[in-house]
Amino acid sequence: MLSPLFATEAMSAIFSDRARLQAMLDFEAALARAEAAVGLIPAAAADAIVRTCLADNFDLVVLGRETAQAGNPAIPMVKQLTALVANVDAPAARFVHWGATSQDAMDTGLALQLRAGLASIEADLQKLSADLATLAKHHAKTPMIGRTLLQQAVPVTFGLKAAGWLSAVERSRTRIAEASGVACVLQFGGAAGTLASLGERGLDVAAELAKVLALDLPDLPWHSHRDRLVDMAAALGLLVGTLGKIAHDIALLMQTEVGEAAEPAGPGRGGSSTMPHKRNPIGCAVALAAAQRVPQLVATLLAAMPQEHERGLGGWHAEWDTIPEIFLLASGALRQMVDAVAGLTIDPARMGENLEATRGLIMAEAVMMALGDHIGRLEAHDLVEAACRCAVEQDRHLRDVLAQDSAVTAHLSPDALDRLFAPAAYLGVAERFVQRVLAARKPR
Amino acid sequence: MLSPLFATEAMSAIFSDRARLQAMLDFEAALARAEAAVGLIPAAAADAIVRTCLADNFDLVVLGRETAQAGNPAIPMVKQLTALVANVDAPAARFVHWGATSQDAMDTGLALQLRAGLASIEADLQKLSADLATLAKHHAKTPMIGRTLLQQAVPVTFGLKAAGWLSAVERSRTRIAEASGVACVLQFGGAAGTLASLGERGLDVAAELAKVLALDLPDLPWHSHRDRLVDMAAALGLLVGTLGKIAHDIALLMQTEVGEAAEPAGPGRGGSSTMPHKRNPIGCAVALAAAQRVPQLVATLLAAMPQEHERGLGGWHAEWDTIPEIFLLASGALRQMVDAVAGLTIDPARMGENLEATRGLIMAEAVMMALGDHIGRLEAHDLVEAACRCAVEQDRHLRDVLAQDSAVTAHLSPDALDRLFAPAAYLGVAERFVQRVLAARKPR
Amino acid sequence: MLSPLFATEAMSAIFSDRARLQAMLDFEAALARAEAAVGLIPAAAADAIVRTCLADNFDLVVLGRETAQAGNPAIPMVKQLTALVANVDAPAARFVHWGATSQDAMDTGLALQLRAGLASIEADLQKLSADLATLAKHHAKTPMIGRTLLQQAVPVTFGLKAAGWLSAVERSRTRIAEASGVACVLQFGGAAGTLASLGERGLDVAAELAKVLALDLPDLPWHSHRDRLVDMAAALGLLVGTLGKIAHDIALLMQTEVGEAAEPAGPGRGGSSTMPHKRNPIGCAVALAAAQRVPQLVATLLAAMPQEHERGLGGWHAEWDTIPEIFLLASGALRQMVDAVAGLTIDPARMGENLEATRGLIMAEAVMMALGDHIGRLEAHDLVEAACRCAVEQDRHLRDVLAQDSAVTAHLSPDALDRLFAPAAYLGVAERFVQRVLAARKPR
Amino acid sequence: MLSPLFATEAMSAIFSDRARLQAMLDFEAALARAEAAVGLIPAAAADAIVRTCLADNFDLVVLGRETAQAGNPAIPMVKQLTALVANVDAPAARFVHWGATSQDAMDTGLALQLRAGLASIEADLQKLSADLATLAKHHAKTPMIGRTLLQQAVPVTFGLKAAGWLSAVERSRTRIAEASGVACVLQFGGAAGTLASLGERGLDVAAELAKVLALDLPDLPWHSHRDRLVDMAAALGLLVGTLGKIAHDIALLMQTEVGEAAEPAGPGRGGSSTMPHKRNPIGCAVALAAAQRVPQLVATLLAAMPQEHERGLGGWHAEWDTIPEIFLLASGALRQMVDAVAGLTIDPARMGENLEATRGLIMAEAVMMALGDHIGRLEAHDLVEAACRCAVEQDRHLRDVLAQDSAVTAHLSPDALDRLFAPAAYLGVAERFVQRVLAARKPR
Repeated sequence: MLSPLFATEAMSAIFSDRARLQAMLDFEAALARAEAAVGLIPAAAADAIVRTCLADNFDLVVLGRETAQAGNPAIPMVKQLTALVANVDAPAARFVHWGATSQDAMDTGLALQLRAGLASIEADLQKLSADLATLAKHHAKTPMIGRTLLQQAVPVTFGLKAAGWLSAVERSRTRIAEASGVACVLQFGGAAGTLASLGERGLDVAAELAKVLALDLPDLPWHSHRDRLVDMAAALGLLVGTLGKIAHDIALLMQTEVGEAAEPAGPGRGGSSTMPHKRNPIGCAVALAAAQRVPQLVATLLAAMPQEHERGLGGWHAEWDTIPEIFLLASGALRQMVDAVAGLTIDPARMGENLEATRGLIMAEAVMMALGDHIGRLEAHDLVEAACRCAVEQDRHLRDVLAQDSAVTAHLSPDALDRLFAPAAYLGVAERFVQRVLAARKPR
Repeated sequence: MLSPLFATEAMSAIFSDRARLQAMLDFEAALARAEAAVGLIPAAAADAIVRTCLADNFDLVVLGRETAQAGNPAIPMVKQLTALVANVDAPAARFVHWGATSQDAMDTGLALQLRAGLASIEADLQKLSADLATLAKHHAKTPMIGRTLLQQAVPVTFGLKAAGWLSAVERSRTRIAEASGVACVLQFGGAAGTLASLGERGLDVAAELAKVLALDLPDLPWHSHRDRLVDMAAALGLLVGTLGKIAHDIALLMQTEVGEAAEPAGPGRGGSSTMPHKRNPIGCAVALAAAQRVPQLVATLLAAMPQEHERGLGGWHAEWDTIPEIFLLASGALRQMVDAVAGLTIDPARMGENLEATRGLIMAEAVMMALGDHIGRLEAHDLVEAACRCAVEQDRHLRDVLAQDSAVTAHLSPDALDRLFAPAAYLGVAERFVQRVLAARKPR
Repeated sequence: MLSPLFATEAMSAIFSDRARLQAMLDFEAALARAEAAVGLIPAAAADAIVRTCLADNFDLVVLGRETAQAGNPAIPMVKQLTALVANVDAPAARFVHWGATSQDAMDTGLALQLRAGLASIEADLQKLSADLATLAKHHAKTPMIGRTLLQQAVPVTFGLKAAGWLSAVERSRTRIAEASGVACVLQFGGAAGTLASLGERGLDVAAELAKVLALDLPDLPWHSHRDRLVDMAAALGLLVGTLGKIAHDIALLMQTEVGEAAEPAGPGRGGSSTMPHKRNPIGCAVALAAAQRVPQLVATLLAAMPQEHERGLGGWHAEWDTIPEIFLLASGALRQMVDAVAGLTIDPARMGENLEATRGLIMAEAVMMALGDHIGRLEAHDLVEAACRCAVEQDRHLRDVLAQDSAVTAHLSPDALDRLFAPAAYLGVAERFVQRVLAARKPR
Repeated sequence: MLSPLFATEAMSAIFSDRARLQAMLDFEAALARAEAAVGLIPAAAADAIVRTCLADNFDLVVLGRETAQAGNPAIPMVKQLTALVANVDAPAARFVHWGATSQDAMDTGLALQLRAGLASIEADLQKLSADLATLAKHHAKTPMIGRTLLQQAVPVTFGLKAAGWLSAVERSRTRIAEASGVACVLQFGGAAGTLASLGERGLDVAAELAKVLALDLPDLPWHSHRDRLVDMAAALGLLVGTLGKIAHDIALLMQTEVGEAAEPAGPGRGGSSTMPHKRNPIGCAVALAAAQRVPQLVATLLAAMPQEHERGLGGWHAEWDTIPEIFLLASGALRQMVDAVAGLTIDPARMGENLEATRGLIMAEAVMMALGDHIGRLEAHDLVEAACRCAVEQDRHLRDVLAQDSAVTAHLSPDALDRLFAPAAYLGVAERFVQRVLAARKPR
């Protein structure tokens, strides 16, 4: 693909056309097995069906063409499968897809794909979480400037920033695990959700089928209730949002004029076709692009929820490519942030320089709080605000301006003032916040 | 408001300008109380602050004007509060907003509003759940046609449809309760999340503050990590999607040509300015409108997640009106569906007529399964499909067409055929599905 | 693809990876030609470059891999192209991509793809427009019931409905043509939009380049101003919305209980894997799915507009797959509606039956207007509304109820009443509206 | 409102509840006038109706309550209007809303509001355009660094940046003017778009009505074809995207570490509740918030387009608050950017310092092009890339590194090298691009 918003290879494989077909075939094989187990169809027929349910036996090009005609891929899949089974065991062909509907095969197949996709994401999340924990721990005392609304505010530590990233990543892991339990369940209801085609045996087959596929058995079929899937998509949306937040921070720190952190470089990575000096934040660009695309894909699924009666017209179809796309984009953004965090270059010296760039302005709050003890918070705010304006206009250090104001010196000695202008002494409980996040992290 | 997409009065009150102000004042009062409790500020000062923290003391018009200047409502609120406290207890004014930042007041205030908003929603959800349970139970054996892609498919029961709605509503209740725990937490970090302004005492104040407000204390401040809020918004998005699904089903059943169910009518409700005979599905229109609007509002929040460094520029601001809007729309849609379900008119006779409308076509699957036992599923499918075409072209009952086909009569006796054309005998395990849903429902 | 949301083959070819590469190569070839024309590079070098700019000369797999590293496809394309030119004419290789930047090649390449894509869409739009015009003309007098909020309202004609579709399709054609002029322009600015790498000759090259490619030359490069592309995407979004409207109407008319119109059927088309009698509105499902997906893709592009400085970080990247997806989905939805409209089955008899289904209620407005002449509109409204309720409750024809009301018979004779209950006599200026639309249609 | 995403006062007035009511009343008054003009109703009745159509005569609270019951605001408006007319002229009351439907009043009323809203936006756009033109002209030769993917790239001018903004703003003006012509048209179709209630006179009344309101008369009513409105919303979406682009650039330039430009400051503007030194980009935050919200609101409208038959169920309702919200957000963002641009502080000295910050790296392309003349573009690229790495690693000026490389000095003299490192000499045709944009600007 000539687009670098690249999914991981693992995820691309999980959501390939071939894998989509195989997942539906896994449903058909399990269905045959389950129906044989409860005595609905002959064991020999089940065996023949199971043996035939391999994607390699199928012609994907023909399937694609017939899908466009039939309106969904399960219909021609069942047709081809029946023909293939008939080739090896004619009587067995009678029992292919017995009692099921297209959506049973498609939704259950999707549940199997989701399970694999989520496992792949969890693996990368574990790596990201571990690396962020290392960063947070290592830089728990590395001072840097905090920035609000893109203006220098007061000092923080890089460890605190990393702990914030880590805490959000951990919440995503929890959320995705919860959503996985809701979404990765069996779909089996027959034509309109009654399993009428199986008479009295519907629930027995359903229970056995769930067991074979190791999927939970829901209360009832959910053909036109799609909240299970959308919940999971929203969980991935939250993850991508958090990855976008990390990417945004890194890209901003990597600006030429800031220079406090940088994505790993490498041969052929992040260059320009015309500017030899360029080193672009490619990983961040990919993650930020995903963070701009996935929210709307989640909205597509949410908006498609009011599906008609027992099977949706258009709403269901809108899901088919949207859900895979979310997984592909999420996997790409995640892998980029795994790599970016693992190879992140931190420049504590530059962080120190930037802390000095405003000539003391960033310690204005510290002075205000110290003065506030004596003259009240709001009065101190106004006094220091005026001093800041004066320092900027006269291009002086804020400390020097304040040192000449008797309203300040009445309460703060020169030594006290000096101490107030040490960024590393104004970090509050940043380190304890980092510890709390590290302590709460479950290695899983 | 000249728009019927009306929020409930309760929700409108929770998210009014006045309530937004009061919630911030509740934060300021609790902060003073907490700081007095840990000995940071005098108890008398805290008392004066607490007493002054009433929205009625404030001038909302001035606040609104100054908000536009300052860039957020907390700044002028703190200014007015300080002045008001100074009026009653000059020294106490020194300690207003001690050590906090604007976003602490705004986010914690929002958490308090969310808690109230979610309680209001849960109350309506309990009513909706109970009424749906009653419907599902009462109509567990009421046959109606199932419809897929807006075409008549095979018989279901109205109880099964109601059980599907109920099951989704119950999942929403669970999901919202989970999200509530994540979103309704304290925000307290000071200027950039270190609580530096409180020196060593930051965490003590935070813990006490959380206790006073009965909110959970998070690992660390989350000024620019917004997943907590977006998770909750997504949970409401799922609820609104489910309400839209219910509304869509009801509106389709209420079509003149279908007529199987109807929203409650009433004087002045659902009429037309020009057509005296009209009875419009007003509640469904409102719920469906919400189901079209809320997904994009959720997407707005998801897309706003990558907020810059320690406080966002634009992303944070994009949340301010979006979150209330989601609650307002959700409350309106929910109340409409509560009323629609509570007063739903069901017409089992019309359901019965519609089951006969296709002259037997809807029993085609039943015949196919019965024949399939003898000649295989796919062969039976093709045979019955041809019979269906014949029945449509010749305008005959499918039973009559089949009864003249020796390939059919070879396996099915006239009596067997008759039994296959009784919709009520082809309901599979619909009733057991209903029972499973009812059994799983937690009254809460 | 195992998804029936299939783009047309033409559009798939236009937006394939290979075509994306060829479009960039077309830019490089034209650039060499233009630079030779103004004397910046040797004519022989240009010839060698032009001859080499064929996608078939390239290794797409390697390109894909290196794209992921480099961050965009133009960088490895230029690298491969330079190597390939060097093979045939070493000195010429010096002048490959002379003075251009990656985005110049990518955006201009995209403009070429857009031009082809829009031409393909216009071709299908012409067919759709012509077929809708035929339908509107043919059924200008075919009465059917108008429906508002899914309730029967008053009579309309099928020709009026088709004219409404046609009028919207024509507006789309106009809108797309306008947007095409804005979007299909040259992008050529060099590294940051100054063309500094070409010294004084930048504008000369730009003008010549535009001429070679037959693209308009914009005022200045637009690397980080994306409104041109988004405007065109929005124009396609409007088209897809209109196609969705047509599909929604057809699908609703095709409901088993309505049965007034139907998509064309065909072997293997719109069946069910389990229900032999099903004939599903597959084309409508595809168009409705597109109408649910494209709006969010447009929103993605709109939200990605605030791109940073001279080249965006993430926002630009978010466009790369989104724009092709919009074209693919639009082409698929359009082709489906072309086919659906061309083969649409209309059932005027069923339309007639449905006009009688309410036993006169749909003529309530007609009676009200006639009575209103005598007793005022609102009084007449209330009187007829009461009569409607009575007719429904007593299961009588509205005419019979009214005929026994002296307040009615005082003003309307039995004959007058009868005339008021003829749907075909209550069509207002429907036919003239149809004529106006047909007259305004430009064949183009 | 305690939210600074404030609409202008003018726009808030145009979309207030009172204005929505008045716009519907303007429709009713014009309808009466038109019907009197063609002789359908008595002139005296029309006079009485026209005189009564003043919002001040109505009880908005009652209207709001009844709207929620009726399902739209036109129904209770017509009811109150009829009663009010009856008070002053009983016979005239008969002719209120004669032949119209609710949506006629609502949509035409909306068209009147849109016309006023768009005029207000055009007024601010003229100011923005003029101020941008001044900036572009004034700074046509002010060099600054161009930045791509947030990394320093090559020099540009601030005038070029401003010209880029201006060019996009001008495209928005053109686009909005076009969309205005499509959206601001009459809606008049009666119950289902046939004007049957007016018999043969429907088109005469429609033509007269359009004349009275100075609105264009469309081919046919467009009750359920909403592309006209969505087109206009998309045009505003493009404008807001462009405003977001401008805001993003300014906010990035205003970063403490960049400091090249700044929003105007002022008392109480852009401060912090806790940090006395802060000066936040408030206007940019508001515009960026709008740029995050409006795209999804446009998507809501696009997705709501497939409305059912002759009047939508939910889709239409989803528009009611969405369209005003887009106007309000657009007006607020626009006004903020008008103010930000009018008062923008530019710091050419800081721009100069930042041009030197990389110690020559930003001139790498200039060197490559000069060398490329001798050794080919790609070879020069690789050579200079290596020199850049060397300069960074050894913390030396790129010029000094190159001056010691014989592969360079073989082709470039020390003087030539010096000239290549003058940013102001490497601006290409930037100035001519600025002139082109200024020349193309229509003052309007």
